[in-house]
Formats: sequence, structure tokens, C-alpha cells
Amino acid sequence: MKALVFEGTGRTAWREVPDPAIVDAGDAIVRVDAVTLCGTDLHIVKGDVPEVEPGRVLGHEAVGTVVETGGDVRTVRPGDRVLVSCVSSCGRCAPCRERRYGQCRGGGGWVLGHLIDGTQAEYVRVPFADLSVHPVPSGVDSFDAVLLADIFPTAYEVGVLNGAVRPGDTVVVVGAGPIGLAAILTARLHSPGLIVATDLAESRLQAARRLGADATVAAGEGPEQLVADLTDGLGADVVMEAVGVPESFEACVRMVRPGGHVANIGVHGKPAALHLEELWSKDVTLTTGLVDTFSTPMLLRLVVAGRLPTAGLVTHRFALGQMEEAYDVFGRAAETGAIKVALGDPRHTAVQAAG
Amino acid sequence: MKALVFEGTGRTAWREVPDPAIVDAGDAIVRVDAVTLCGTDLHIVKGDVPEVEPGRVLGHEAVGTVVETGGDVRTVRPGDRVLVSCVSSCGRCAPCRERRYGQCRGGGGWVLGHLIDGTQAEYVRVPFADLSVHPVPSGVDSFDAVLLADIFPTAYEVGVLNGAVRPGDTVVVVGAGPIGLAAILTARLHSPGLIVATDLAESRLQAARRLGADATVAAGEGPEQLVADLTDGLGADVVMEAVGVPESFEACVRMVRPGGHVANIGVHGKPAALHLEELWSKDVTLTTGLVDTFSTPMLLRLVVAGRLPTAGLVTHRFALGQMEEAYDVFGRAAETGAIKVALGDPRHTAVQAAG
Repeated sequence: MKALVFEGTGRTAWREVPDPAIVDAGDAIVRVDAVTLCGTDLHIVKGDVPEVEPGRVLGHEAVGTVVETGGDVRTVRPGDRVLVSCVSSCGRCAPCRERRYGQCRGGGGWVLGHLIDGTQAEYVRVPFADLSVHPVPSGVDSFDAVLLADIFPTAYEVGVLNGAVRPGDTVVVVGAGPIGLAAILTARLHSPGLIVATDLAESRLQAARRLGADATVAAGEGPEQLVADLTDGLGADVVMEAVGVPESFEACVRMVRPGGHVANIGVHGKPAALHLEELWSKDVTLTTGLVDTFSTPMLLRLVVAGRLPTAGLVTHRFALGQMEEAYDVFGRAAETGAIKVALGDPRHTAVQAAG
Repeated sequence: MKALVFEGTGRTAWREVPDPAIVDAGDAIVRVDAVTLCGTDLHIVKGDVPEVEPGRVLGHEAVGTVVETGGDVRTVRPGDRVLVSCVSSCGRCAPCRERRYGQCRGGGGWVLGHLIDGTQAEYVRVPFADLSVHPVPSGVDSFDAVLLADIFPTAYEVGVLNGAVRPGDTVVVVGAGPIGLAAILTARLHSPGLIVATDLAESRLQAARRLGADATVAAGEGPEQLVADLTDGLGADVVMEAVGVPESFEACVRMVRPGGHVANIGVHGKPAALHLEELWSKDVTLTTGLVDTFSTPMLLRLVVAGRLPTAGLVTHRFALGQMEEAYDVFGRAAETGAIKVALGDPRHTAVQAAG
């Protein structure tokens, strides 16, 4: 088959690799019908994720069709259309039993396109298939469902749920990339009173307004003052960090009200300063987290119900064989305006669940 | 009357001041029967709390007898024995309605011995008396009850509740001063599996063991290694910071498990480094807080029931007129072994509630 292979820092190739095969009785082999690129893939290519070895097939988001299952798999069978989640879970270890699938210590967690070959390929082997894929109901387009592989549960669990968004809240989303935009859409499920988004790029602020932000402000134009003005100087109930640099995290902490929540979603490479001399008496809750994907079935129900317009984040579509072109467009997002890039064979997007 | 007056940095005096009088219809005047000194008082004397003006009567912890009430006070009357809480609350502002009394914006919060005259005196004026004092049931010694004025609700709300201690948890308490020891005692209300305490002083570790710590370790002797050893390398479920310096906060964050809680109780004067490059994927919750004292009535019921041995923290007792001697002993805690110092007139400690 063909797959997108990480060849070492700065280099990838869409090239022939061996077909995946069942190696454990819990595995499923899935034909990839729709796949997306993630900012994390770009970090891997840059060499920022050293545990990814050259030769690895990248990708951790897909919708596809089961073609083969191991002897222990009970919940899906060949022909089923499934969402391949970015998080695989053994279901047996202590974190899995706590529903912290992202922290799985039994061989799951974020392994696809990281520690084992991933989804940017014609076929992918998914371990622990019973807990790591989700059947996609008929009537749901594969390109809507594929956005639930990572960014929507990430934004919802690590941003909205950790941040404890409640009806009427003032919510600030710092960073309006794919995750920040998904945070805006999923924050709306909890009926906040006001959503403020900030980003460096005007194109992303436009997307934020289109997807439900009530107010947007360029990162350089005083988001902290705007939030203070909108909240009588008190600060926001919930601030979500969806950038991943110390400056934006520190700005989030400055914008939260006493008693409020700062939910970090961003992937960070450096420490930030935590101003405990101001925070110690402020009743602030700060959270970090890796997605667990426990919310994926619920989010899928919302997509079925037409209440979560996930595909609004997809700005570019390509055929699977155009993988290198897709990486180029996604990698130059500042120029191309790319938010989420999706690939797939149009032949397959109408495939329905067998069951 | 006599009172302990802050005379400017480094100077206090137990001297004659005017008797307090009702200035608002919500006030009560309370005769002080039992009073304690707090580490915060020492910070004030050192000049670390600049909003405290010279001439201020210090103290925010007392049990006493109501001698006069303003026209709007409905829940206490002259003769009642009451606990004077460190937090006063107007009951009308937004934070009070959220039960965040510590953040009161209507003139309450921590005001006693801070922004208005406090409890280290023969009499004290307590604002918003209906919400700021708690009747003490007969049969409870004033010297047991007075510890509920600050340190027990602080340790319980800001440490145990914010830290979300659950049955079976491994709990680490960093700092075994009065707050850390109260955190150990109140953590036990939630039936943790293991409590580990660490401090610089062996005398405090002894107190920690006496009050329920299962393991103690000197701060210089590798608490992080001990916690790792006790948890299969995973880390503690809950870590409470009860010191207030960056080093101890940073150690707390290193000792928490994925999915765990770090509850900061310490009063900090400097920022700490937050290692988001390690934490972003670790599902950690960090909290800060000022006590709200919403738990005080419940803690008082536990004292009545004999289930919370608060007075175990009192190492030294003095008559009220020995205030300066008490400050000296408390200020040299490293030499004297003082944990909590209480003062009061023995004549009054047997006074019962009039109702």
C-alpha cells in the first residue's frame, strides 16, 4: 500500500510500504476512507517529537472501513464504517478503568502515527479495536465524522469540560486554530453567555466569528483590556489556552476571574511563570490534559443530530494520493488560510456502516 | 480596653486603645475569651502586608461572648458565645451568593486585623455579624472552637476539598505547620489510604505522625523519592502545598500523579515555574484559594461530636495580657517548638452559650 512515511527531520514521503497485518487478536485492519492532518504531524516532521522514529507512518485521525479483525474483537466486523480515534485504549489498566484512556498504560494512549504506524495510509492496523474505534452511523459523512478523531474531543474534554463551562459564563478562547475553533463550537453546547476569541491571524478570527465567537480581538490589540471591559474588570469565568507558548498561557491566567478556570489545551515545549503571589488568594483552578476520547460517542450523536457542524473547520480537501500536496498547504497555513485539511477517496465517502 | 497594636514594621504593643463601638446596624461587639496567633500576623509585623496600617489592632481568630448587637442583627444576641471567623461576609454580593465569602466584595472577606481592627484585644467589632460569627454549642471548649476561626476551614476547603481527596487516595502534605497539620486532620475525614507529610523540622514531623500522617520525611531527605517509591513511581493522588515558597510548590507539582490534584494553600510572595512542557499532557489540576469558611458549621459539628481533635495543635497557652510574650514564643517557633499559640482568660473559657 501507499503511506505517508516520516523519513527523519524535515523529510516525509508518500511511498509504498508493506500492508499492515493483524499482530494481536484485539487488532482491526481498517481501510482509510477519510483522513486529516494535525498540527502535531507538523511538529513530528520538524523533529519536535523525538520518540517518533524514521520509517513511521504518520497520522492519528481517520474514518475507514474495517477489512479484517483479530479473533478477540467483538464490537466491529469487516464492512463496518468506523471512526479511528487518536487514542487507543487497552481498557484493562488503572487509567482506562478511570476512563483516562489518554493515559493508558496497557499499550494504548496516543500510539497511532507516534509509536506505531498511523492513519495517513491506505490501510491502518488499530490495536484494541473494541475500545479504539467507534462505529459511524449511516447518514453521517465520513468528512464530518473524521473531525471527531482528535480535535473535537480534545477541545471538549480538555477545554470545555476541564474548564467547567456553565450556562451564562464568559469564555475566552486564546488561539483560534483548529482546536480553538472546536473549543468555541463545543463551548456553545454549554450555553455560555459570551465567547471571546483571540488569535494573531485575522483569517482565524473570521472563522471564530463564523463558528460562534461573540467578540474577537487580535492578539496584539489588547485582549486583556477587552476582557476586563466586558466583565467589569473582574475577568472571564473560563479561559482556554489553545496555542502552547508561555506568553499565551500567562495571558490566560491574567484574564481569569477570581473563582474561574484556566484550561490548558496547548502542547507546550517550555515552562511558564506562574504568578502565585497574585494567584494564591484568587480561587483559581488550572488544568492540563491529554484527550481521553470518552466524549467521542456523545459528540458523534450530536453530529448525527445535526447539532455539531464539525466540517465547518475543513478548508481544503484532497484525494488520498495528494498527501504531499496536502502537507504543503497545511504547513503554509499562514499563507494558504488552511485550518483543517482532509483527504480521502470520493469513492469511499458514501460507504455506509454494514450493520 | 487593651489590644495588640501594629505600630509599624517590626513593632507591636499591647496597649490601651478606645473600646470598639457599633458603627453599622449589622455589627456585633464581642468580648474576646480565646484568641490565637497566626503566621499571617507575623508577616504583617514584618511589613509583608503593606495594606495593614500602623495603629491597626491585629488578629482574625477568636471565640468570645456577644456583648452588643446592631439593630439589624438577628441570629445572635448579647450573652451568646460565638466563634469569630477570619472571614466576614456581607452575604449580598455576587461572590457571597456563590458562597465565595473569602472574595466578598461588599466589605467583608478577610478584613479583621487587616483592614479593620481585629481580635487580639479585649473586645472586637465584627461586621455583618449574622454571617461572620458562628454560635458555639455548649460543651465545646473555647480553645477547641477557636481553631475553627481560620486554620481548619482553610486547610479543609483550600487543601482537602480543592484537592478533591477521596477514600483510598495517597495524599502528600508539604509543610507541617499549623495549616499542614490541620490538612492532615481534615484529610482524614475523607479516608485517604496513605498520608505522607514533609517539613524541615523534625518536631513538626513528630506532630504530623501524632495527628495521623502515615509516613513522614524531612524536606531535605528526598520526599519525592519516597512518594515515588510508595506509589510505584506514579505519584500522589493529591499534593497540598502548605509552605508558600516556589521551591515547595514546584516539588508538589513533581510529586503528583497523572490525573491528580495539587492544592496550593500557602501564601506566596514570588512566582513559581510551571513546567507545562511536562504537565500539558498529564491531566493535572492545580488550585489556589482563600478560605471561604462555608465549612465552618460542619467542622464545628465534628468538634461537638468529638471527631476533630483541633486543640491537639495548641502547644502554648497564655492569658490575654501575655500577648507580647505569646508573640515572642510564636515568632521563635523553630526554637520553642510552637505550633499554635492560644490566649485567653481562664475565667471565660467555661462560659456557655446563652441560648
